[in-house]
Amino acid sequence: MGEALYEAALKRAPEGTYCRIYAPVGAHKDLLPYLVRRLLENGANSSFVHQLSIHACRWSRCASTRSPPWPITTPCHPRIALPQDIYGPARKNSKGVNLNINSEYQPLIARMNDFMDRDYHAKPLLGVEVSDDDAQRQRVTSPFDRRQVVGSVQWATRDQAEQAVEIAWQAFPRWSETPVEERAAILERHADLMETHLAELMTLCSREGGKLLTDGVDEIREAVDFCRYYAARARKLFAEPTSLPGPTGESNELMLGGKGVFAAISPWNFPVAIFTGQLVAAAVAGNTVVAKPAEQTSLVANRVIELLYEAGMPRDVVQLLPGDGPTVGSVLSSDPRITGVVFTGSTGTAQIINRALAARDNAPLPTLIAETGGMNAMIVDSTALPEQVVADVVHSAFQSAGQRCSALRVLYLQDDIADRVIEILRGAMAELRIGDPRDLGTDVGPVIDEEAREGLLAHVEKMKAEGRLLAEAELDPAHTDNGTFVAPMAFRIDGIASMESEQFGPLLHIARYPADKLDAVIDAINAKGFGLTFGVHSRNESFTDYVASRIRVGNVYVNRDIIGAVVGVQPFGGQGFSGTGPKAGGPHYLLRFATEKTRTINTAALGGNASLLAMGDD
Amino acid sequence: MGEALYEAALKRAPEGTYCRIYAPVGAHKDLLPYLVRRLLENGANSSFVHQLSIHACRWSRCASTRSPPWPITTPCHPRIALPQDIYGPARKNSKGVNLNINSEYQPLIARMNDFMDRDYHAKPLLGVEVSDDDAQRQRVTSPFDRRQVVGSVQWATRDQAEQAVEIAWQAFPRWSETPVEERAAILERHADLMETHLAELMTLCSREGGKLLTDGVDEIREAVDFCRYYAARARKLFAEPTSLPGPTGESNELMLGGKGVFAAISPWNFPVAIFTGQLVAAAVAGNTVVAKPAEQTSLVANRVIELLYEAGMPRDVVQLLPGDGPTVGSVLSSDPRITGVVFTGSTGTAQIINRALAARDNAPLPTLIAETGGMNAMIVDSTALPEQVVADVVHSAFQSAGQRCSALRVLYLQDDIADRVIEILRGAMAELRIGDPRDLGTDVGPVIDEEAREGLLAHVEKMKAEGRLLAEAELDPAHTDNGTFVAPMAFRIDGIASMESEQFGPLLHIARYPADKLDAVIDAINAKGFGLTFGVHSRNESFTDYVASRIRVGNVYVNRDIIGAVVGVQPFGGQGFSGTGPKAGGPHYLLRFATEKTRTINTAALGGNASLLAMGDD
Repeated sequence: MGEALYEAALKRAPEGTYCRIYAPVGAHKDLLPYLVRRLLENGANSSFVHQLSIHACRWSRCASTRSPPWPITTPCHPRIALPQDIYGPARKNSKGVNLNINSEYQPLIARMNDFMDRDYHAKPLLGVEVSDDDAQRQRVTSPFDRRQVVGSVQWATRDQAEQAVEIAWQAFPRWSETPVEERAAILERHADLMETHLAELMTLCSREGGKLLTDGVDEIREAVDFCRYYAARARKLFAEPTSLPGPTGESNELMLGGKGVFAAISPWNFPVAIFTGQLVAAAVAGNTVVAKPAEQTSLVANRVIELLYEAGMPRDVVQLLPGDGPTVGSVLSSDPRITGVVFTGSTGTAQIINRALAARDNAPLPTLIAETGGMNAMIVDSTALPEQVVADVVHSAFQSAGQRCSALRVLYLQDDIADRVIEILRGAMAELRIGDPRDLGTDVGPVIDEEAREGLLAHVEKMKAEGRLLAEAELDPAHTDNGTFVAPMAFRIDGIASMESEQFGPLLHIARYPADKLDAVIDAINAKGFGLTFGVHSRNESFTDYVASRIRVGNVYVNRDIIGAVVGVQPFGGQGFSGTGPKAGGPHYLLRFATEKTRTINTAALGGNASLLAMGDD
Repeated sequence: MGEALYEAALKRAPEGTYCRIYAPVGAHKDLLPYLVRRLLENGANSSFVHQLSIHACRWSRCASTRSPPWPITTPCHPRIALPQDIYGPARKNSKGVNLNINSEYQPLIARMNDFMDRDYHAKPLLGVEVSDDDAQRQRVTSPFDRRQVVGSVQWATRDQAEQAVEIAWQAFPRWSETPVEERAAILERHADLMETHLAELMTLCSREGGKLLTDGVDEIREAVDFCRYYAARARKLFAEPTSLPGPTGESNELMLGGKGVFAAISPWNFPVAIFTGQLVAAAVAGNTVVAKPAEQTSLVANRVIELLYEAGMPRDVVQLLPGDGPTVGSVLSSDPRITGVVFTGSTGTAQIINRALAARDNAPLPTLIAETGGMNAMIVDSTALPEQVVADVVHSAFQSAGQRCSALRVLYLQDDIADRVIEILRGAMAELRIGDPRDLGTDVGPVIDEEAREGLLAHVEKMKAEGRLLAEAELDPAHTDNGTFVAPMAFRIDGIASMESEQFGPLLHIARYPADKLDAVIDAINAKGFGLTFGVHSRNESFTDYVASRIRVGNVYVNRDIIGAVVGVQPFGGQGFSGTGPKAGGPHYLLRFATEKTRTINTAALGGNASLLAMGDD
C-alpha cells in the first residue's frame, strides 16, 4: 500500500517535490493504540497535518532561546504560550537547552570546557571575612575518576558555625523589615545570574557531583525556577496585609513575616537545586539563613552563594558553612537561636536533627521542614503499553544513577504483562551506557562515593546470592575503573514488604501481582509508611483513578516516569517517613517559613467611628 | 447653659414632650477629645442624630436573635450588615446574648437553672463502649465553692488510651476518603447544636470551670465560630483540587487530605472553645482525633462530644479520653501511630510533648501545633485617654480572673501619664466585685484550683514583701471563703526583664518609661522571647504604627483591650516561646493538619494530546 501511495502522490505533486511515506511496522496488538494516537493527533485543530501554521517548537516545554534554524513565516497559535510564558505573568519559565540539537549543544560544551580544568576552592562564607586555615582543607575529586582533582574546600569549625548563627541572629530584625519586593528582586537577579553561569554550574555538577549533562541542565533550571517561583509567591503572600472581615469600628489585618534564623541542610544529589530552593525560600520569607551544603558538593554550593551575593543578597543574611554533620550540623541543630531547620536527606538524619532541636533548653519550639527518604513504587496493569512502561521505568530507576529521592525502587507488574515487560526492559538495560557523565552519550554516571557504592554492592550481593537477579547492565572497565560506578540492575522480589531499606542507586526491584490482588499491593505500599512518589501505568482511566486515590504518597504520576518534579507544576514532597511537608515548589511552602501577625485597630477610639461618615446610602 | 436650653426646647416642643439635656461634666483637658468624638458621631451620615432611620441594634456586634422591644418601622442601612451576616455568605456569625438586657438575660438564666443542680458524669468516649470503673472515678466540685459537687468523671486508663489510638488509626483511611462536604456539614450541625444547648454549656462552664456568665457566652460563641469557620475553610481548601500550570499534554493537580491520627490536648481555661476548635480543625481536614481535655474541665468536654456525636460525627473519628497527663498524655505523645499533636497549654508542657514525640522509634516526624504561654505587654503613651486605657487594662488583666493566654501582664506607662492612669486604675479596681461567677454582678470569678491559687499567692507575697503593691481589689469572705479566689492586684516593676514567669491570674505589673526610652522598652519585650498579644494606646497614629510594626508578637491591638480574639477576625497565636503557629481561627490553620498530594497525568499517553483538539483558534 505504501508504494502505491508514494507513486500516486508524486504524480500529483509539482516537479521536484520530495515525498516520504511513513509506514509503521508492528504486531497486530499494537495496531489499535497506534491508530487511535494517529487519529487524535492528525485530527486535532492544531495538528501540524491539519494546520501547518503552528510552530512545532511552541509545543515543547524545552525552552530554547535561540531561533529555530528555519525561518518563522507562519503565525503562531494564540492559545499556546511560548515556553518561557507557560507560567503566566508572575514568573518566567527557566531556559532549557536541548542537548540533542547540535547548535545548542556545541556552544554550551565549548563554554563548559573553560571550567573543566579550573581548580576551585571554597571556604566558609560568613558575614565577616574568614581567614585561610589549611588544617581544615579537604581535597575534592571527581566521583567518575578519583584521579581528577576538582579543588579543595576549607570546612567550617565549630566556632565559625556559632559565629555564623550569631551574625544571622543579629541580622534578622533588619532583614525581616526589608520590603519583600527587595527580597524577591534579589532572588530574581540570582535566577538570571545562574542562567548566565549555566555552563560553569553544570561543569561543577558533573565534576564534583558526577552529574550527567542532561541532569545538569535540569538541575540549574530547577534552581532558577525555585528562585522565580518563591519570589512570585512571596510577593503574593508577604507584600500586603490581608484584611479580615469584622464589626464596624475596627480594622483587622493579617500579615506574614520571617520567623528568625533558619538552618538549611541540603543533600549532594541536587547540589544546586535543593540547596538553592531551601535557602531562598527561607530568606525571601524574611528569615536569615545559615546553609550547610552536603560535604560532597561544597564547591558548587560555594559558587552558588558567590552568585547570590552578586545578586545583592547581604552577606549576613545568607551564610555558607561547608563542613560535616558532627561539627557544623550539630551546632545548627542545638543552638537555641535557630528558629527552624529545613532539611533534605535521610529519614534517620531527620530524626536526629528533630531530637537535637527538641532537646534544647530555653529555645522556642522549632520549625522542622524535612524531605526524607522514599520507597517509591509503580503499578502497571495489563492494559499498559509495554514499550511506554519500559521507557518510563528505565528513566525513573536509572536516570541520575537512581540517586533521586523520587527514583523508582519497586515495580509491580500485573502477571499477564510481566514477562513481556521484563523482556523489553532487559533489552533496554543492555543498551545503557555507563561512564563519564560529561559525555553526551552516557546514560548512567557514577554513584556519589565509595561509601555509597559499598552499601549498594552489599545489597546486590545479597540479592544475587538469593538468585534474584533479572537483568544487569554492563560496566565498561575502560570508563569506570577509576570511579565509583554501580551497574544498573533489576531484581525479582515478592513485594515491597521484603525491602528493608531504601537502596539509593540504580537498583530496581520487580514484583508480580495477579489482577485480583491489586488492593493487597496498594495496602502493602501504604503499610510501608513511606509516601514520596508513585507511578501507575494503565490505559484504563478508572484503574488509574482508583489506584491514584488510594495510594498515600506526595506525588502520583500517571502514564509517565516518576522523577523530575517541576517547580510550581509538581510541588514536591511526601508524607509519613518521607517528610513533613509542605511541598517544596508548591503554593503552601513559604507559609511554613513565616510567622503570622494580626493588627487590630479600634478605629472608633480616636473620636467615633469615622468609617460611618464615609459610607454612602448604597 | 443646660437649664436655659432645657426651657427653650420645651417651650418649642408639642405639649407632653419629654426633654433631657445631656450635660457632660469633666476637667478642661477632657474637653477637646470629647468634643471631637461628639462631632464625628453626630455628624456621621449614619448617626442616630443625623438619621433616625437607622436601627441602633445593627451597629452592634452583639447578635441578639430576638427582635428589639420596639417596633421596626424604619428602613435599615443597606451597607451595614446584620450581625449574623458580617462574615459574608460563607458562614453565619454566632448568636450573641446581651446579658444587660433583661429580656435576653431572664430567659437564659431560667434555662440555666435547669442545669444548676444536675449531677454530671463523664467517662472515656471511644469507638467502642467503655464499661464503668469506679476505681478511676474522680469527684468534680466548683472552683468558687468546693462544697458544691458538679458530678464525677471516670478517667481513662493507659490501656484505653492505647485502644483509642488503635481505633483512630483504623478509622483514618475511611474518614480521609469521606467527602469534605460531609465532614464540614457535621461541624455546622455541631455549631447549631451548641447554640441550642447554650444554657447548659454555659452552666457547666460556670460550675466546673468557674467562668463568668459573660465569659460563658463568649466561650460558646467562639466554639460555634470555630466550627463554622473551619467548615467554610475546609470546603475552600479540600473540596476541589487546584490545577497547576504546566506544559500541554499533561494535567497537574494539587489536593489536600488528612495526615493521620491527631491527639488534641486542650486547657481548662477555654474548655469548650479551644477544646472544640482543636478537634474540629483536625477532623474536618480528614484526620481522626483522640481528644484529651484538661483534667479540671472533663465534664463540659464530655457534653460537647455527646453533642458532636449527635451532629453525626462517627464515634471512631473523634474519641474522648478524660484523664491526667502522666497516664493519657504520655500515651498520646509516645505512640508511633500519632501523626500529630495539637496542644494549648504551658510552654514547658509543650516542650515535654515535643521531646516525647521526637524520641519515638519507627515513627514519622510529628506535626506539633502548640499555642503556649505569653508575657503580654501594653505600651501607653502620653496622648492616650486615661479613662479608655484603664477600662481596657482592667478588662485585659482581670476579665476571666486573668486566666487567658492573651491577658495583660505588663503595662508600660509613659512617665507623663503614669500617675493619672494609676490613680484611675485604683478607683476602677476598688469597684471590682469578686465572687460567684453565676451572678451577673460579679466581675471576677475564682482561679481554677488550689494549686493555681498557691502559685499566684507565692508571687503576691514576694511582690508585697518587696513593697511593690500598687492596688488590690477587695475579697468579700462571704462570697469567696469556700472557693479558690485571688484578688486582682497591681504591682510596680522596673520592666518586663524582671518577670521570671507568666503569672496566670489577675495580677498586673506596671512599669514606667520616659518618652525617649521607647525603643528600649520594645527591645526588652521582644528580648523576653514570648510573643503572643500586645497592646498599644495612643492618639498618635505614627506612634502606634511604629510600635505595632517593631513588636514581635502574634496579635497586636491598638486602642482597645488585648483579649477576646474572634475567630476569623483576629486569628490567634504567637511566636517564639508563645507557640508554633499557624494561627487558630486563621486562614492558614487547616493547612497544618493536611498533607498535600499532586497527581500528574500524561494526558497524551493514551493516544496523543487530546486537549489540542478542543482548542479553538482564539
